[in-house]
Amino acid sequence: MTDLQVTSPDGIGEVVAGTDLAALVVERGDLRDGDVVVLTSKIVSKAEGRVVRGDRDEAIVAETVRLVARRGPTSIVENHLGLVMAAAGIDASNVEPGLLVLLPLDPDATARALREAVHQRTGLNIAVLISDTAGRAWRHGQTDLAIGAAGIEPMVSFDGRTDSYGNPLAVTAPAVADEIAGIAEVVSGKLGGRPLTVVRGLAERVLAPGEHGPGARSLVREVGTDMFGLGSREAVAAALAGTDRTPFGAPALAADLLDALGACGFTAEPEGTGVAVAAPADDVRLGALLFAFGWTVGSDQSSETRTRLAPLS
Amino acid sequence: MTDLQVTSPDGIGEVVAGTDLAALVVERGDLRDGDVVVLTSKIVSKAEGRVVRGDRDEAIVAETVRLVARRGPTSIVENHLGLVMAAAGIDASNVEPGLLVLLPLDPDATARALREAVHQRTGLNIAVLISDTAGRAWRHGQTDLAIGAAGIEPMVSFDGRTDSYGNPLAVTAPAVADEIAGIAEVVSGKLGGRPLTVVRGLAERVLAPGEHGPGARSLVREVGTDMFGLGSREAVAAALAGTDRTPFGAPALAADLLDALGACGFTAEPEGTGVAVAAPADDVRLGALLFAFGWTVGSDQSSETRTRLAPLS
Repeated sequence: MTDLQVTSPDGIGEVVAGTDLAALVVERGDLRDGDVVVLTSKIVSKAEGRVVRGDRDEAIVAETVRLVARRGPTSIVENHLGLVMAAAGIDASNVEPGLLVLLPLDPDATARALREAVHQRTGLNIAVLISDTAGRAWRHGQTDLAIGAAGIEPMVSFDGRTDSYGNPLAVTAPAVADEIAGIAEVVSGKLGGRPLTVVRGLAERVLAPGEHGPGARSLVREVGTDMFGLGSREAVAAALAGTDRTPFGAPALAADLLDALGACGFTAEPEGTGVAVAAPADDVRLGALLFAFGWTVGSDQSSETRTRLAPLS
Repeated sequence: MTDLQVTSPDGIGEVVAGTDLAALVVERGDLRDGDVVVLTSKIVSKAEGRVVRGDRDEAIVAETVRLVARRGPTSIVENHLGLVMAAAGIDASNVEPGLLVLLPLDPDATARALREAVHQRTGLNIAVLISDTAGRAWRHGQTDLAIGAAGIEPMVSFDGRTDSYGNPLAVTAPAVADEIAGIAEVVSGKLGGRPLTVVRGLAERVLAPGEHGPGARSLVREVGTDMFGLGSREAVAAALAGTDRTPFGAPALAADLLDALGACGFTAEPEGTGVAVAAPADDVRLGALLFAFGWTVGSDQSSETRTRLAPLS
């Protein structure tokens, strides 16, 4: 029997620039050793003065590192925290009309500082998560994620472990920080006033004092290793715009490139460590495919209509 | 103060084809009115006989509706439930070596039947979720999602509601079923033996007996409305393969197409309800862009090198 308790106190009151969040957590959290405290990014941003008055579209541009996809009025972008979110994570809810709440500059650092402050003031060893809301590529609705974490491993790797039948669990790695942030959303709700949630029963997952873990940033896929770093349309435009940009991640296997070449009507076959294709090297369609698949035209061309291809190193 | 309790009983024992899951839930769940019961898809599949002996790659092909992306040995596909998952959701853990666990055929129906059976046998009104594990496009690790749901709205729409400042919450729609399935994963763990979790404290979200809600299928984005229906490389190959397939969703705004045409080196401008581009209508790059953006060559061409474009209706 495993038991978990999730509690979200009412009446936290208004958080403003300079509010002492550690004091708030200590006073209102009714904390015990081993608790996991979840704070919404909204109150962290307010406490850290990340509330601005200004034009929403301009603020989105300022917070954006990279456009991932755009459909009409909706922009999905990567922001300075590496998070892929609509509107760069900028929010205009639970704040005075006309104001914009930007995401915290470094929520992992905030989580660490809060955890240390609570330990200093109370001697309690807790973990701290900072949550924000994000949509998903293939599912409706949003879930809350951990964008800051201290004192807990955000992801539990089962690599090297086996189930009770002896099967390896190599690729299994539950993102528990995101799952805990999600249930805090269920309990605290979206209408404001309950930005603090305490999760009790996970003490065995809370790291020793001073060990903060890798932070929520470790849950962000690195650029170039993701398969969905661009929306479908943006991927086509990027490929057709030329080969002077970063291709989409590591070179594809020759078999995958051969499949794609075949699907596009090219005749192609493996040749040594590369691929030979019946097309001139300057064919625009071929160039777009090579860009997307991380391949390039080889240095030794056999003829004008037959091109040797090699993976980009 | 809102309180939630999450409990996952130990020692559920082996579930086999024909196991009476309703009896198991009643006997082991220590249920109360208003509980939300989460069952892993694994035990539902086992109880429903969805365990096969066979080749994993062949099983993946059989369960696949559509290839979304492939990188080396990893295939991300859409399966018959509309779920986008690695390996079509086929699992070989927590089962005898050599066996494969396929996803339930209709987990929403299973959730409804379980909910009704528990009500008939005990008079208790509960909600039932069936969970499975999935990766995310932009984040490392996996979280558990609801792939079956009965007696609860999987997504809570705040459309039409306002926060305490009067700001509308139009686009906010927490996928609470996924968030509840996620915390069940945290509590029950991955090493088997705790496939049943009871979440207490959400009674106000449990629908009246006989009202099952739209099911977890309602959380699946419809084909064509998603921006990430193909991996970046697959999107390029699909666009270059020709215009005889379904384009990527609804036609883009003219402004977005103009941006993409500009990025690809075309000179283009708005013209009436369409777009005029300085390129011949049979330009391959133009064709790929039009395919991706859901546009087509207009019927009235002004010259061989200037093409009028119109959104596909």
